[in-house]
Amino acid sequence: MTSTAAPIGPRRPDNAPMGEFELLARLRERLPPPGPQVRLGMGDDAAVTVPAGATATSVDAIVEGVHFRRDRASLRSIGRKGLATALSDLAAMGAAPGEAYVILGIPADLDEDGALEVLDGIGEQALATGTALAGGDVTRSPALSLSFTVVGHAAAPEQLVARGGAAPGDRIVVTGELGGAAAGLLLLEQDELAPAVPEQLSAALLRRQLDPVPRLAEGRALAAAGARAMIDLSDGLGADAGHIAAASSVQMRIEVAALPVCAGVREVAAASGVDPGQLAAAGGEDYELLACVPADRLAEAVSAVAAVGGTSLTPIGEVVAGEGVELRLPDGGRLAPGGFDQLR
Amino acid sequence: MTSTAAPIGPRRPDNAPMGEFELLARLRERLPPPGPQVRLGMGDDAAVTVPAGATATSVDAIVEGVHFRRDRASLRSIGRKGLATALSDLAAMGAAPGEAYVILGIPADLDEDGALEVLDGIGEQALATGTALAGGDVTRSPALSLSFTVVGHAAAPEQLVARGGAAPGDRIVVTGELGGAAAGLLLLEQDELAPAVPEQLSAALLRRQLDPVPRLAEGRALAAAGARAMIDLSDGLGADAGHIAAASSVQMRIEVAALPVCAGVREVAAASGVDPGQLAAAGGEDYELLACVPADRLAEAVSAVAAVGGTSLTPIGEVVAGEGVELRLPDGGRLAPGGFDQLR
Repeated sequence: MTSTAAPIGPRRPDNAPMGEFELLARLRERLPPPGPQVRLGMGDDAAVTVPAGATATSVDAIVEGVHFRRDRASLRSIGRKGLATALSDLAAMGAAPGEAYVILGIPADLDEDGALEVLDGIGEQALATGTALAGGDVTRSPALSLSFTVVGHAAAPEQLVARGGAAPGDRIVVTGELGGAAAGLLLLEQDELAPAVPEQLSAALLRRQLDPVPRLAEGRALAAAGARAMIDLSDGLGADAGHIAAASSVQMRIEVAALPVCAGVREVAAASGVDPGQLAAAGGEDYELLACVPADRLAEAVSAVAAVGGTSLTPIGEVVAGEGVELRLPDGGRLAPGGFDQLR
Repeated sequence: MTSTAAPIGPRRPDNAPMGEFELLARLRERLPPPGPQVRLGMGDDAAVTVPAGATATSVDAIVEGVHFRRDRASLRSIGRKGLATALSDLAAMGAAPGEAYVILGIPADLDEDGALEVLDGIGEQALATGTALAGGDVTRSPALSLSFTVVGHAAAPEQLVARGGAAPGDRIVVTGELGGAAAGLLLLEQDELAPAVPEQLSAALLRRQLDPVPRLAEGRALAAAGARAMIDLSDGLGADAGHIAAASSVQMRIEVAALPVCAGVREVAAASGVDPGQLAAAGGEDYELLACVPADRLAEAVSAVAAVGGTSLTPIGEVVAGEGVELRLPDGGRLAPGGFDQLR
């Protein structure tokens, strides 16, 4: 038992490792103040919010060695991407981004400056998307890990778009371009591919892999334009279309020739002996939105996404009676979907 | 490129490891259906809820090797405790438990049955506390980890109790008994301590360590009885009292002799050469509630907690002007607070 008359303050010896509470305090200092919807932010037992209408809540984690490698991505970009991929689930609901909560698992070989760089990346993404970082926790962990909870909002639950509402006759649409993230990953993994594409294109493909943009405004535009089912493309077009097919009890019939393929993907695919259609249809991590809209609202959906100004919307197929996904090739053949399963 | 005419279903070869989607599907089958406040539960991009009033949201993670060891706790109890400790933060706000979201990090040496046991433990705790498991995710991970987000509710934000409202003159109260979790940990770690306490008492101390009960009803009772600041005891009384002191800009003056010490703690402390006051004041993980109530509402608070029927409420000190925590010993000395910091 130690006896001391001094009351205990939050001091630490100068050479001691930074503790949980200090790291959280420094995180709070660096973050933009949350908006008025957050009545009580980080630093208490819980954050207090007063949501109006409906909330969409999603959890998502990325783990070193599984979802990223520190030798291939900056700590800041890991933080940015982690929150981006979590927010992509809110985009796929057509929700407006609201609050984010993060749990940072810090390994022994990451120092305080490193942890703060990850947090800065998270803060950048929060600022870019108008998301309030309302809570967080840090813990020691054998590998760097980022676990996010994101909460989005809509005026009413009916305005949020789930996966189960697709109906035969709906047109299948996708935002942006596909295959870029997979091609970027190949470029990261195989130095010998560098000459395959001009430097500017290569940089763009790496950004698709390392710094994806959640299609938040596009998701809201699609919801407002009558989208009946929507999902974000994290596991790959084939796999994610399969989730809509299963939830809606329909078949997703997609024309591979109609897929909007990202510039440079064909060149990278050719140089690495991979089929470009495979990169676009099964590559994953593009974080574009796949949606099913009633045929008579297709033009409205295309205009609504164009009006956002971020990217375009491309019709790629049709919902039909049946089950599963058909990725139809021009020659009448089929492409096998595939995709990324977190546990495999 | 593979060509196949068959649409893709959710089948897998019999000997393949269980994938993310199947594990989540089996988790959903095992869970009690969420209540009407959850419009859309697990299995979509996000859960949809329609909260009324104010929400309290907290995130919490436990990691193998940092917060638990698989050779000392059953997988089921790890799941139970993980959700209990997360819900304890809602108790400390005086919130009614609402929804929980979990991310399970699964290491290579945990098989499907093991993962489902962890999930069963989480499901048991959800059922015991009336919490709806509204969402989840699984990922591979180098160590077993459980990341929780819990959402609680109150009619208005003013009904939720933060850490910053304590004022000089308030009485400091604590629910239940202290030191049991720390004594239970000693029993787990040192086989030679077993003879120190009768088997029944030893079992009770182990339960305090392995299967804590979140004081949810007590937290609401304290909030209704005018508690102005509240926190749950996870890091240890001294450390957690320090958080209230810092947030409220007051000094927390606590009488060590007044602390309600759990039965068996003195015996375990004596056998292992530790001071029992240290176990009660710095041991951590008791998950009791520490609150500050206006002096003229102390009797009401004691009655309100007693009426819940789970445990008692003990006055242990007074809020005074100043800063930090004083743990006062009967001889006029002071006990050093200490406590557990996740990163140290």
